[in-house]
Amino acid sequence: MKSNEFKIRVIYADTDAMGIVYHANYLKWFEIGRTELFRDMGIVYADLEKEGYFLPLTESYCHYLFPARYDDIIVVETELEYLRRASVRFNYRIWNEAKETILVEGYTLHAFLNGSGKIVRAPKGLVATLREDIRNTDVR
Amino acid sequence: MKSNEFKIRVIYADTDAMGIVYHANYLKWFEIGRTELFRDMGIVYADLEKEGYFLPLTESYCHYLFPARYDDIIVVETELEYLRRASVRFNYRIWNEAKETILVEGYTLHAFLNGSGKIVRAPKGLVATLREDIRNTDVR
Amino acid sequence: MKSNEFKIRVIYADTDAMGIVYHANYLKWFEIGRTELFRDMGIVYADLEKEGYFLPLTESYCHYLFPARYDDIIVVETELEYLRRASVRFNYRIWNEAKETILVEGYTLHAFLNGSGKIVRAPKGLVATLREDIRNTDVR
Amino acid sequence: MKSNEFKIRVIYADTDAMGIVYHANYLKWFEIGRTELFRDMGIVYADLEKEGYFLPLTESYCHYLFPARYDDIIVVETELEYLRRASVRFNYRIWNEAKETILVEGYTLHAFLNGSGKIVRAPKGLVATLREDIRNTDVR
Repeated sequence: MKSNEFKIRVIYADTDAMGIVYHANYLKWFEIGRTELFRDMGIVYADLEKEGYFLPLTESYCHYLFPARYDDIIVVETELEYLRRASVRFNYRIWNEAKETILVEGYTLHAFLNGSGKIVRAPKGLVATLREDIRNTDVR
Repeated sequence: MKSNEFKIRVIYADTDAMGIVYHANYLKWFEIGRTELFRDMGIVYADLEKEGYFLPLTESYCHYLFPARYDDIIVVETELEYLRRASVRFNYRIWNEAKETILVEGYTLHAFLNGSGKIVRAPKGLVATLREDIRNTDVR
Repeated sequence: MKSNEFKIRVIYADTDAMGIVYHANYLKWFEIGRTELFRDMGIVYADLEKEGYFLPLTESYCHYLFPARYDDIIVVETELEYLRRASVRFNYRIWNEAKETILVEGYTLHAFLNGSGKIVRAPKGLVATLREDIRNTDVR
Repeated sequence: MKSNEFKIRVIYADTDAMGIVYHANYLKWFEIGRTELFRDMGIVYADLEKEGYFLPLTESYCHYLFPARYDDIIVVETELEYLRRASVRFNYRIWNEAKETILVEGYTLHAFLNGSGKIVRAPKGLVATLREDIRNTDVR
């Protein structure tokens, strides 16, 4: 199963007055993770949209284990958990720089929509591209 | 069980290029909801911190049903699901202005920490204040 | 000259690890200010867009005098400085709750664009609506 | 004069419903720029804070020339305009990926404060480090 990993440094904009990363900001790093994982697999999300497919979130979940702080480097690890007929799920782990400690674990679930907001089947090109790379799929 | 409700208008800062509210921003409205629910109950979160108690998130979950859009007025409803020895959980529902449609449902789970980041029991004053108002508690 | 004033409470999402409001977030309150000032004058910005007019920023400026902090209530005061043929400028003052101290002063300058991004003259309806209310205008 | 340049890709979180980067978000990239420029010069801002020096913004200015859009790569260029006794100013230019077009120009001005918020002289170590690198300074 394909995964993607990138490092990013926490800036003031990411933190709050508790001195730690504000919890909602991990979701932004999840977004980078899944976009870059798709790009690694040859799928440019912006192109999907040009073809009329949108992948808005239907669910998000975060488990906050340890805080990240200002100027920390963190590692964001993303994997494609599954691709279904009309949905896709990504799992995320955010590590400290040394990758010894998981700071946040989470997932996002996305639906395939067309331009008018109707649920549609995942585009065939994407299914073909991903079929070899992913763990679970019920799409044929 | 006590709950709090407030209205807020979606601004450009809340939206993204898909034309809808960016999913992470609902968590900011959840924050307003729980802070104001506590304030309604006589608990000022900023004062808890002065007494050495912190309530960082340990989990967050969102189910995105329908999108909110630029200039929409939304209704954010918050309730205290439970208070445990060292944790507290809030549930949230975000409605369209007419309160006919739920746009987002979710929850956040929080731990009571002291200033050095150790898990501690919920402060007695808070437990006493909340005891009558909440549905479930194992704190005596 | 028309002006608008609203109060808002600082939440954790607005702050950073320095314990104060992150400087970029004042611009979001400026956005609320100018949108609500327009609404007070009978102009709904979302409707302007439906008619094919867009008002993106061409400049923004902030002078940060004193910090706002978590749970502070602040007062955001907005006035329309001028309306020109193809631009509009708003001034802002952010006060502490008692309106004794200015925390931040600033302005934003906006151009009128059409849907294809070309600079256009301010829509006539808007000019007519604003003419009595604003201090300076070279639009007839 | 020293300058720093980095590339970053625009994500959905950076954009708004106008389909472009929300204007306040350029200030976040400015933050990365000045922090990394300082780091290039051997100054870790987080360490300055440990020594009791803070550099909050006193002014920010942005001139928005062309919009950046979702999935664009942009180039953020930062230079240290001057170091004065108690202040420092950075200039920024945000370019399109090919560095043919300036999208946004701006600056931020910062004061040196101690832990109790009083204006203080720039720390000697920092002055010594920067003296060779910067264009204008009245600090000896």
